[in-house]
Amino acid sequence: MDPAITSSSNPVVKRFRKLHRARGRRETGFTLLEGPTLFALAADAGVIPEAVLMGESDEATQVLCAERGWEPVLVLADVLGRAAESIHPQSPVVMIAIPPPSPMRTRDTLILRDVSDPGNVGTMIRSAAAFGWDVCISGASVDPWSPKVIRAGAGAHFALQISSSHDPISDARNLGLETVATIVSDGLDPARGEQPVALLIGSENSGLSPEDIGRADRTLTLPMSGETESLNAAVAASIAMYALGRL
Amino acid sequence: MDPAITSSSNPVVKRFRKLHRARGRRETGFTLLEGPTLFALAADAGVIPEAVLMGESDEATQVLCAERGWEPVLVLADVLGRAAESIHPQSPVVMIAIPPPSPMRTRDTLILRDVSDPGNVGTMIRSAAAFGWDVCISGASVDPWSPKVIRAGAGAHFALQISSSHDPISDARNLGLETVATIVSDGLDPARGEQPVALLIGSENSGLSPEDIGRADRTLTLPMSGETESLNAAVAASIAMYALGRL
Repeated sequence: MDPAITSSSNPVVKRFRKLHRARGRRETGFTLLEGPTLFALAADAGVIPEAVLMGESDEATQVLCAERGWEPVLVLADVLGRAAESIHPQSPVVMIAIPPPSPMRTRDTLILRDVSDPGNVGTMIRSAAAFGWDVCISGASVDPWSPKVIRAGAGAHFALQISSSHDPISDARNLGLETVATIVSDGLDPARGEQPVALLIGSENSGLSPEDIGRADRTLTLPMSGETESLNAAVAASIAMYALGRL
Repeated sequence: MDPAITSSSNPVVKRFRKLHRARGRRETGFTLLEGPTLFALAADAGVIPEAVLMGESDEATQVLCAERGWEPVLVLADVLGRAAESIHPQSPVVMIAIPPPSPMRTRDTLILRDVSDPGNVGTMIRSAAAFGWDVCISGASVDPWSPKVIRAGAGAHFALQISSSHDPISDARNLGLETVATIVSDGLDPARGEQPVALLIGSENSGLSPEDIGRADRTLTLPMSGETESLNAAVAASIAMYALGRL
């Protein structure tokens, strides 16, 4: 089988490259995922690809596509590299439709306010899926469907519900969730009432706004015993979800 | 004040660039840290820089160096960019001596076996410092003093003891630590005896070796309730340290 696309200026490659940017994803409603593991997880979750570019000698993708009746397009390695968002992409590079955001539910939900690092957002989505939480994206948080975030999510995007909200504190309150503001110091130990929790996580640099903290039903600070009091944002969110899940 | 270094082929820049690679750090015993926050944290911890390169209009560095009697070298922006390891470096770029590894102690210790992602290693060091643990590097784990790891550590490198060991399980046992193998599934809930814990964390892709798991005193698997059972390695290590610290 000869490569069907040998030039990076092919229109298909341009369609893929457009999705490297938030604007291109917003305009088209598509995003990219890369590598055999993510592709297999997405397929298992019922995701149907819009287009599959694969490098030569990628048997796993050939087999998976044959099983499902999908038609991958064989491309040269440098074409794959151009189409992919990552620097050292693995075959395949797959275009998928971004699922419409689900509404927030009466259920433990991690609310991202202004979380800007794609790795952090992906890691939080991964932890939320592991602990059975939903995720809500709000404020200036990074697009949860960017290829970088999907990569850090390691397949979790297809195992939980992701909502988005302009006023997540009001939405959570209307659903009967208890809103909990995660703060770096001087907050309360992890605790919960009868209701599900809406756990608010702020930006990596400046945390939650005073307004968000003031509006929340309670605060949460993880007890720390070391000399520093600083955790990576995704680690802090993950530990808080774990701790609240054990109460 | 005119820039003292205007060319990237200056020998000083070459000395800095050598430290981008593990081999250069091993041969010289130096590494790099970048940006005002890390520089301030290191200075507060008593670290004395070997050399400081700063960009124009970096007043914070000028003030800090003046207070301490250090002499920063003013360089052009693209020289700073060449000297730095990161793609979008912040001034200053600072050369420091790598502290000699401390020996393992009778104290809660996170043992990294084959942890290969610099961001994960840095994040684990950061969490260990927050929870008052030591860190031991072993196996094929990435150099904890690489600039990438230092960046993810966010200053924690200067707030804890980092040891290294070829046989950390024996070392831990000789010190009276209880060795605990973190495994992805089918391990025991977090628990501890009377002794401090040596918590073993394996590689991102394949976890701990069967040999390490077999030699450990007990296993640990974090209870998870979601549809997936997968956590980022740094998140898993951090939650385990948190959970063991609450017992």
